[in-house]
Amino acid sequence: MTGPRIGVFDSGMGGLTVLRALMPRIAGAEYTYLGDTARLPYGSKSKATIERYAVSSARFLLSEGADVLVIACNTASALALDAIREVSAVPVLGVIDPGAQRAASTSRSGEVAVIATAATIESHAYAEACSKRGLRAIEKACPLLVPLVEEGWIEHPVTAKVLRIYLDELDTQAGAAGLKPDTLVLGCTHYPLLRTLIQGMVQGHMTVIDSAEAMAVKVSAAVDEKWLQSEAAVRGELIIQAGGSDEQAGEPDEDEEVSCRFFATDSVDKFRRLGSMFLGQPIDEVALVDLGG
Amino acid sequence: MTGPRIGVFDSGMGGLTVLRALMPRIAGAEYTYLGDTARLPYGSKSKATIERYAVSSARFLLSEGADVLVIACNTASALALDAIREVSAVPVLGVIDPGAQRAASTSRSGEVAVIATAATIESHAYAEACSKRGLRAIEKACPLLVPLVEEGWIEHPVTAKVLRIYLDELDTQAGAAGLKPDTLVLGCTHYPLLRTLIQGMVQGHMTVIDSAEAMAVKVSAAVDEKWLQSEAAVRGELIIQAGGSDEQAGEPDEDEEVSCRFFATDSVDKFRRLGSMFLGQPIDEVALVDLGG
Repeated sequence: MTGPRIGVFDSGMGGLTVLRALMPRIAGAEYTYLGDTARLPYGSKSKATIERYAVSSARFLLSEGADVLVIACNTASALALDAIREVSAVPVLGVIDPGAQRAASTSRSGEVAVIATAATIESHAYAEACSKRGLRAIEKACPLLVPLVEEGWIEHPVTAKVLRIYLDELDTQAGAAGLKPDTLVLGCTHYPLLRTLIQGMVQGHMTVIDSAEAMAVKVSAAVDEKWLQSEAAVRGELIIQAGGSDEQAGEPDEDEEVSCRFFATDSVDKFRRLGSMFLGQPIDEVALVDLGG
Repeated sequence: MTGPRIGVFDSGMGGLTVLRALMPRIAGAEYTYLGDTARLPYGSKSKATIERYAVSSARFLLSEGADVLVIACNTASALALDAIREVSAVPVLGVIDPGAQRAASTSRSGEVAVIATAATIESHAYAEACSKRGLRAIEKACPLLVPLVEEGWIEHPVTAKVLRIYLDELDTQAGAAGLKPDTLVLGCTHYPLLRTLIQGMVQGHMTVIDSAEAMAVKVSAAVDEKWLQSEAAVRGELIIQAGGSDEQAGEPDEDEEVSCRFFATDSVDKFRRLGSMFLGQPIDEVALVDLGG
């Protein structure tokens, strides 16, 4: 049988950091990535608009034959996961929950901090997911980080200054709430590109967690489980699933190649050019898709 | 007869700076403003996408009965003016040409600089409009200025630092091209909010020109002309139009009230809240409109 067909969705190119973390983990997978670049950013828009955009994007990936939908976009995961699940017959995995789960297994104090887009923060999706795991979370919107990354100012004094301001405000906010977070969740797929800078600033008092990485582990576990079940069904065998920690799942099989198809709703040239920065390898072909609007 | 019905279009709220400049100029006008906030920003997107968005927005304003369309968005004016004119039976005025005209009447050296979004700069619409008037123009994209204004960092050290970097790069670019611009055109409706900061930095060697202001003068002249003609037609009189400079047009008549209706394609609350900053007065009511997508 062929490998799992995994649909990965993001408002733009940030979700390529999730794809990058996924690729070495799932043997023989066929990835279809959609970046809704004509309507980005989602992070500054309303729930109703984000739901409408995310649902039409998800429908496209379903029409391309996805066996599982990976919502790599934090904003869409925070605000549109239920709406996407309503139209999807296949499993839909969001990025918030894996991030919160990883935070819970990392934090010793039970107090964590989350930085993300305005829409993600205003939804309080991370705070709720953390609270379900007995964590207290302090949340901080950082609207300028996405434009700074997209300007290519990755290790730039202005980006360092902006981060310093946001992290100081986060500190003040945490102090006012009587919290001392020991874990910092990067709640936006653009932020892993600033990881070195961020890590340098919080070193000694917070461990940095990348939701993209946490999600890749989660997705490969879910896909493994589904695939073992399907193969068992094909062979008429019964598979007893091991519980295990999420860290053990998804060991890559280097013999099986993965394939990737890329779709964007705006300029394919720009996607090819900038996307390589997020994916960490060249992107050859991108197809334009019109989702209306 | 009722006053002219003026449709003002922008991708977001920046065009409110044009409306602000227009309001005291045209007696008895009825304004309809549309901000395509669900699909903003236009400045980072492709010509095909910008045309599609701008045309559907223009159609909405036409369906609301506009007698003239004012394209307050620099990016839409630079990339979609022809496409909008194709679907419009009423006059369509863009913001690029008035900006270039004002630059021509201001510059002594015949060499000017333009700062704008990436899409506006890549279109070279300003350079072409300047060239038609015998000016040589140097153009510089400043992608971070819009997000900085939207973060509310108007007189902020980070914004000053970013501006310093962009203006230094502009200087280097001008030097390499053998130009010494004496005039700086603000080619984006967000930039007038940074005028004080910009003016402080270029004082002594460049005069700052605001396209929004230049456009308001142009629109009021065009509307006056059209209205004088219509009124003449109604009264069966012949009006001889004075040539005059564009600076003389559109003296306000304080007895006649102007009315404004506001439409947005995304969150009306956000439009009300942030829009007031651009308009310089409170916005009470905003209606949501769905243009698809």
